[in-house]
Amino acid sequence: MAISTFLLVVSIAATSSSVFAASNFPNYAVSRARALISLFTTAEKINATISTSPGVSRLGLPSYQWWSEGLHGLAKSPGIHFSSGNSNFSYSTSFPQPITLGAAFDDDLVHAVASVISTEARAFSNAGRAGLDFWTPNINPFRDPRWGRGQETPGEDPYHLSSYVKSLIAGLEGTGDVEWNENGKYKKIASTCKHFAGYDVENWDGNYRYQFDASISTQDLVEYYLPSFQTCARDAKVGGFMCSYNAVNGVPTCADSWLLNDVLREHWNWTGGDSDGLWVASDCDAVQNIFLPHRWAPTREAAAAAALTAGTDLDCGTYYSHHLQGAYDQGLINDTDLDTALTRLYSSLVKLGYFDPADSQPYRSLGWDNVSTTQAQQLAYTAAVEGTVLLKNDNSTLPLNLDGKTVAVLGDWAAATTQMQGNYYGNAPYLRSPLYAARQLLGDDSVIYASGPDYTDPTTGSWDAIWEAVDAADVVLYFGGIDTSTESEGTDRVTLGWVGMQLDVIGEIAKSGKPTVVVQFGGGQLDSSPIVNNPGVGALLWGGYPGQDGGVAILDIITGRQAPAGRLPVTQYPADYIASVPMTNMALRPDASIGFPGRTYRWYDGNAVFEFGYGLHYTSIAADLSLSTSANSFDISSLISNCTEDYLDLCPFPSVLVSITNTGNVTSDYSALLFLKGQFGPKPYPLKTLVSYGRAHNITSSNATQINLNITLGSLSRVEENGNRVLYPGSYSLVLDVEPGLASLNFTLEGVATTLDEWPTAPANRTGSGTTEVPENYFVGGYGSEDGGQVSLGS
Amino acid sequence: MAISTFLLVVSIAATSSSVFAASNFPNYAVSRARALISLFTTAEKINATISTSPGVSRLGLPSYQWWSEGLHGLAKSPGIHFSSGNSNFSYSTSFPQPITLGAAFDDDLVHAVASVISTEARAFSNAGRAGLDFWTPNINPFRDPRWGRGQETPGEDPYHLSSYVKSLIAGLEGTGDVEWNENGKYKKIASTCKHFAGYDVENWDGNYRYQFDASISTQDLVEYYLPSFQTCARDAKVGGFMCSYNAVNGVPTCADSWLLNDVLREHWNWTGGDSDGLWVASDCDAVQNIFLPHRWAPTREAAAAAALTAGTDLDCGTYYSHHLQGAYDQGLINDTDLDTALTRLYSSLVKLGYFDPADSQPYRSLGWDNVSTTQAQQLAYTAAVEGTVLLKNDNSTLPLNLDGKTVAVLGDWAAATTQMQGNYYGNAPYLRSPLYAARQLLGDDSVIYASGPDYTDPTTGSWDAIWEAVDAADVVLYFGGIDTSTESEGTDRVTLGWVGMQLDVIGEIAKSGKPTVVVQFGGGQLDSSPIVNNPGVGALLWGGYPGQDGGVAILDIITGRQAPAGRLPVTQYPADYIASVPMTNMALRPDASIGFPGRTYRWYDGNAVFEFGYGLHYTSIAADLSLSTSANSFDISSLISNCTEDYLDLCPFPSVLVSITNTGNVTSDYSALLFLKGQFGPKPYPLKTLVSYGRAHNITSSNATQINLNITLGSLSRVEENGNRVLYPGSYSLVLDVEPGLASLNFTLEGVATTLDEWPTAPANRTGSGTTEVPENYFVGGYGSEDGGQVSLGS
Repeated sequence: MAISTFLLVVSIAATSSSVFAASNFPNYAVSRARALISLFTTAEKINATISTSPGVSRLGLPSYQWWSEGLHGLAKSPGIHFSSGNSNFSYSTSFPQPITLGAAFDDDLVHAVASVISTEARAFSNAGRAGLDFWTPNINPFRDPRWGRGQETPGEDPYHLSSYVKSLIAGLEGTGDVEWNENGKYKKIASTCKHFAGYDVENWDGNYRYQFDASISTQDLVEYYLPSFQTCARDAKVGGFMCSYNAVNGVPTCADSWLLNDVLREHWNWTGGDSDGLWVASDCDAVQNIFLPHRWAPTREAAAAAALTAGTDLDCGTYYSHHLQGAYDQGLINDTDLDTALTRLYSSLVKLGYFDPADSQPYRSLGWDNVSTTQAQQLAYTAAVEGTVLLKNDNSTLPLNLDGKTVAVLGDWAAATTQMQGNYYGNAPYLRSPLYAARQLLGDDSVIYASGPDYTDPTTGSWDAIWEAVDAADVVLYFGGIDTSTESEGTDRVTLGWVGMQLDVIGEIAKSGKPTVVVQFGGGQLDSSPIVNNPGVGALLWGGYPGQDGGVAILDIITGRQAPAGRLPVTQYPADYIASVPMTNMALRPDASIGFPGRTYRWYDGNAVFEFGYGLHYTSIAADLSLSTSANSFDISSLISNCTEDYLDLCPFPSVLVSITNTGNVTSDYSALLFLKGQFGPKPYPLKTLVSYGRAHNITSSNATQINLNITLGSLSRVEENGNRVLYPGSYSLVLDVEPGLASLNFTLEGVATTLDEWPTAPANRTGSGTTEVPENYFVGGYGSEDGGQVSLGS
Repeated sequence: MAISTFLLVVSIAATSSSVFAASNFPNYAVSRARALISLFTTAEKINATISTSPGVSRLGLPSYQWWSEGLHGLAKSPGIHFSSGNSNFSYSTSFPQPITLGAAFDDDLVHAVASVISTEARAFSNAGRAGLDFWTPNINPFRDPRWGRGQETPGEDPYHLSSYVKSLIAGLEGTGDVEWNENGKYKKIASTCKHFAGYDVENWDGNYRYQFDASISTQDLVEYYLPSFQTCARDAKVGGFMCSYNAVNGVPTCADSWLLNDVLREHWNWTGGDSDGLWVASDCDAVQNIFLPHRWAPTREAAAAAALTAGTDLDCGTYYSHHLQGAYDQGLINDTDLDTALTRLYSSLVKLGYFDPADSQPYRSLGWDNVSTTQAQQLAYTAAVEGTVLLKNDNSTLPLNLDGKTVAVLGDWAAATTQMQGNYYGNAPYLRSPLYAARQLLGDDSVIYASGPDYTDPTTGSWDAIWEAVDAADVVLYFGGIDTSTESEGTDRVTLGWVGMQLDVIGEIAKSGKPTVVVQFGGGQLDSSPIVNNPGVGALLWGGYPGQDGGVAILDIITGRQAPAGRLPVTQYPADYIASVPMTNMALRPDASIGFPGRTYRWYDGNAVFEFGYGLHYTSIAADLSLSTSANSFDISSLISNCTEDYLDLCPFPSVLVSITNTGNVTSDYSALLFLKGQFGPKPYPLKTLVSYGRAHNITSSNATQINLNITLGSLSRVEENGNRVLYPGSYSLVLDVEPGLASLNFTLEGVATTLDEWPTAPANRTGSGTTEVPENYFVGGYGSEDGGQVSLGS
């Protein structure tokens, strides 16, 4: 990554020492980027618009690979190069998938995990083994339980996602990390909020992500699909965005000038009024998809031009490099369009210190010693423990004392290795399976392992060893569920049931009369009611994708070395839910006229198997709520006039003090989830809404602790059909947890309804002009799926 | 496979030399089987009911693996053992998939291919490398274009399937091969008609084959789903049947006593009144599926007992061995039930010569010298040539003289190896790709190869090499379509369009102005209208899965060394067909009230892209039809009273003489397809019906030939709603080919409507009693799919 002296001179000369003050950093970066780009020919500019950027050798500008992945640790991708063997840089820390991290409901944990990821990313980058920008996080809400990539997200709730992602980006980009980044002069890494927007269908019933046109109401868009992205752009000032494969309301997002300019850059003020190192990349070959299969642009050149002029600065693919020259020749784009995109890209690299000497940059000092440290390994373990959820525990089956017992360790996850990493993963320092953990705890002779039933195999050929193991054991531990063979990029699930013949096997095991524990893995929820209803299964845990130390974390919970306190970050619907819910119906609210029961805990009008936020403990908890003020009635105009925030939805409401007492016998964490209830704003009303959360750690028996939960006016507001966010007078209740009657408090808002945010309506008639090369309604699809995370089709 | 002397004595002693006459063979086999089974304990009997039969070591009876596959050549399966390296028995002939063989419309070719397969099977068996029974053919009609296993069938038409399978079974089992099988004493191999019945859904929209309940009208069942099986059982006396995963009208087929006994064994007289070596095997673990996910039987023991007593003699799986003892203890089965099943199984082995000395059996003399002979290799090539279909040929683009030209060879099939084998395949002696063939023909320097676009990869990363190849070439050959990554066992397709980004690539290639030929591979049809409508693509061929010499066959057709004369054995529907056709709707007739356009060329009321039977030639053809009698009016009662057949539907109608003249300049085959039209019998009337076909070979320019096509009364009949097959008076037309006006003739039937076959109606109230272990409507599914044919999940 050496930059020629010539180029250094040019790029540094373009600025002057007088603009080095922190407040001028953006313009400083832009100036240096412009000076560099001014040396490019038009052909060189076009070549630089793709993710595998060739650089300009005649200027000494090296190639740069924009595509590095880091979803839950460094992940195999074009920009990341693990070394082979057991040498330096042959591995890095592999944390649980976001769905498991989300279940912890612990933003401090999220920040800590993100900080380790960015530290390891810098260490790899400094060794020439990674880029400086990373295409993470995936922050689309987990709207439909079938989504193959729901595992990449923290869950279904937009408040939860926003709170989580703010901590995550701060950890990734080094925000506030003043000693290391020279008071904000440098970003630690650039992260990329994806997939903007409305992306959460892979291939349902032939609706491929590359051509799916999501029909989303303005109200749902603002209330559900965009809050996490607003937080990324407006509040966390994330370095990059990624537009998605799908269209929204007729326009492919990478060609949607309203979405990328009016909403993202203007309404959310992502640029501060200038192109300052904040860029939009396309999902991989989403630019091509504008031509086919979307058929939105009449020619290939028009597709490329539409994306560039809409604000897609970087093409992950080759459509820009192959067709922008034609678009230029046809007058569809000009040098100014290219300069705008390249200025954003190269000023980002300036802010990442790419053009500056190493000795001025503390981040450049990170190396192999900073990768997979003892602390990082401990953090991966802690994250797996915190994210595990206890769903059933009849007669306190758990924790189990396994001393002196012979234990059968069964199921397709028992010997899991890369299964525990889900997708978008790299080489881990180790992958400790439940089987490994059981053997470590009990010794090899006390553990009887049988593989199978293998849920990709519908036959019973492997079962006899299972029966033999059960016969010989005192206790049976079954580790199963789903994995990326049924939920992955490119592959949505087709059932919410347990896959393969696991229920037959579990049912027969349960007949043994021996203590039986089932651990359910995978990101998408399964209807576990047959297991819940089976008295022969004593306990059920959910572990998601728990990462490199997942097996140890789970066994430590089973044996009581740790106590579970995670909460389901998604609704566990009954299996027949999907029969009445086309995945392509993007609505949240129920609609009885079509038998549509609604989506998420806020709107679903049926009976969940387990609701959002559900999670048992080994102990019992008492709690109380109080406001940080003695008032219980508040004037809306006063709340607003006393606020100093730039955006009214961020204005504070008095915080809520949660007092928690551990009334049982086991030391335990407790995640406090605070829900809002009430009838205010536009009908229909949601059942409840998460407005704050926090996690207390290690509360010992008979002891108490307190958590202070912040609430914003935005959390109390509702979104109208036109997209405006409005705070209404009315009676409000705050309720703690999903357990009825644990703790609650009431208050009222007085005064007149007040708009907190006025939404920029999309212009009408934004549809494309089609292409004559493929007939209308012609259907393209049928991609295979990736091989368990090793190869990403897109990003 | 050595049998102990003790056992030989027992089994031979059970008969006497006086019963060795051919007519007594069945009873002879049964007697020997019964003598053997009488020595088994009940536990030994139960152990012998599964496909991996352990034998009875105390009796010297060795283990026997019933599961060998041979769909289009010996295929990897538990019973077949290829040797490693390049040694004897390391490979065998790999013919085209049945969908390609079916496109040849040449039953003599089918018989020749089947004879080679059974010869090679015997050679492997004699070397201890294969069983004597093979779980082939898959003879379900290719009803829905999405079916992942349609490639395993000869196509969509029941007459075509019946005619094809009769030739196939004769070739496989050595029927009429009197010198080799001692006048019918021995079968060459036993083949297995599968999957009985109504099986043609893998996983559409979560409807998994293991739990799908196909709702089929009696009329459709008799008219469409069962004719090929009737031919197998009644007319070809196939050695085995396989019941299927799915249920039909509420009853899992392996538990359906009506289907397996009333229809198969009684109405179709499959047993001749006794258990004579004709057995029914379950598809792999279909017995388990009766419990879960079908939930048809209340307990696991009841599921096993229901299958055995319904007539499923062999369990591919372990449910019989694991649960029949429990069923026995509960009184759900008895020794007689076990003896019936085992008598069928072991008398089959008797008829295969398993218990007889090798020196009395000519089939036992076959060895490695009989595998992959020059004739077999030539036949594999011929089958690929005959099955290739020419779909478009603007301005006689084909044949192409490539001498001295530089040719770009592109597309995901260009370098195909095992792709050409589809699924259920073994090691081939060689796999000659289109690229191999082009290099052989033109020399390496004249061929520019670029891989991609890779239809499992939605990105454009590999495309630049394609553009470079096109730029450098004089002629472009694109080999693409689909393969088992999108259509396979366990995986139905979700689109009829070209998968991945192939249409974008082909469209850009077509802009080059260079002669461009597209070859479409895969078993399921693709809507090729964008290619048909693109004037830049001169020609389109369909090759299906052409087997070991597929690339050479296709290149020889492209260059004119061979002429194409195959016909599409399925309808090529437009891509939007599936939008109005749930795969689970089993009906054939259109239903305007639900927007259902019907299925197959007989009923589909829309416009096909290419209709069933479509196929162009390099030459032009003139034809004439005449009956083998001067009459054109026939009395139904006379037709019947003059008939000597056991079954009235097999009674002959006067045959049709097809006179064909090659009026063009190229020597060519011609496949004569004879369709029946007319308004008679129950409404609605089919558009037309295939009633006979035959293929003329190598008709030289300006020369004529004749084909005599036989027609039965069954082909002229219609099926009523109650399932009865009836011959009606009325006006009939016979029409040659799909080209309008080529040749036709008319005749009338006089007299009264006469029933040819009276259908045994299914009894009412045959539904199961469910299981309490899983809630009603609980959904199980989500199996992965096999890896391109290497591993079969089922059979």
